[in-house]
Amino acid sequence: MDYPKAILELIESFRRLPSIGNKTAERLAMYVYSNMDENDIKLFSERLLNVKSKLHKCPKCGNLCENELCDICSDKTRDSHTLMVVENVKDLFVLERLNVFKGLYHVLNGAISFQNGVGVEDIEIASLIKRVKDEDIKEVIIATNATLEGETTARYIKALLESEDVNITRIAHGLPVGGDISYADEITVLKALEGRKEY
Amino acid sequence: MDYPKAILELIESFRRLPSIGNKTAERLAMYVYSNMDENDIKLFSERLLNVKSKLHKCPKCGNLCENELCDICSDKTRDSHTLMVVENVKDLFVLERLNVFKGLYHVLNGAISFQNGVGVEDIEIASLIKRVKDEDIKEVIIATNATLEGETTARYIKALLESEDVNITRIAHGLPVGGDISYADEITVLKALEGRKEY
Repeated sequence: MDYPKAILELIESFRRLPSIGNKTAERLAMYVYSNMDENDIKLFSERLLNVKSKLHKCPKCGNLCENELCDICSDKTRDSHTLMVVENVKDLFVLERLNVFKGLYHVLNGAISFQNGVGVEDIEIASLIKRVKDEDIKEVIIATNATLEGETTARYIKALLESEDVNITRIAHGLPVGGDISYADEITVLKALEGRKEY
Repeated sequence: MDYPKAILELIESFRRLPSIGNKTAERLAMYVYSNMDENDIKLFSERLLNVKSKLHKCPKCGNLCENELCDICSDKTRDSHTLMVVENVKDLFVLERLNVFKGLYHVLNGAISFQNGVGVEDIEIASLIKRVKDEDIKEVIIATNATLEGETTARYIKALLESEDVNITRIAHGLPVGGDISYADEITVLKALEGRKEY
């Protein structure tokens, strides 16, 4: 006898999440059945739905957004002349938590990857170039990851912006090569920011 | 700036699951937002709710149950004279997958633990004794874990059933097949020695 259908289906849903294998998925599904009461499960289920229904992409920078513009883009106290380019929203929040950068962001929503078939038009590069042309941007800090994909993306952006009247910088390699910003410790990220150089 | 409320709440729900820490919870919540489409999320959310709405405890053995009795209790081809006592449903399914045991089960739904305040009346021991008295049980195989709690529970059940006309056995504990003595913990080696047989 195998698990009933309801459990097998939940295992399957957990298993699709990143870093969750078969055994963990089974354990989580059984935990939901055995250890969570109906209210907890309802709450969990509603919160999953809320993520899509209550949030959308900020039309300007791509950050998570509850209103017309995100909290960062609509914050008039921030430096609107400096743009930090990150691969994804998670990186943006890692940087925000350090509380050192006071400019605006541009979320690419990925990085150019020939291996995974992610091309220039699949990420928010055109909108970045448009922002640099339209807004009064003085510095673009490229904070893509120090991976093959992140570097490729950084170089591509640099090439496209070279003709514009804007200072292009790249966060320093305080980040371990091959590493991911969201897993780096705060000091490493801080050092990387401080040591950014002309690109 | 921190994550918007909808993301913070989902992170909190993930973090309550076993073996999910802060970083993983954050990663999972962001994955739901960035990588899952609305249909996938709806499905996940429904499946969570299904686990409680479509399943209940088998009133006889405590197994997961979609109908009046679970698939094992209602299977007439199984040996209704042998009862395997397990701590939880997950253990039952591990044993079922081996496809070697053809009797019935009794799920205790826990083990006696003074440390965690789990007493005799908190787990399904009374119902086990009642089944042994009422049904024509010839053997009770105690398959609780080889932990302090599992052993305490096993001894307690044995003491309660000693006056009944039933054969009480305990699954063997020892070195795992393919295992190496030098890598086994002391208690396992001790159990393996205690349980040695004529060769």
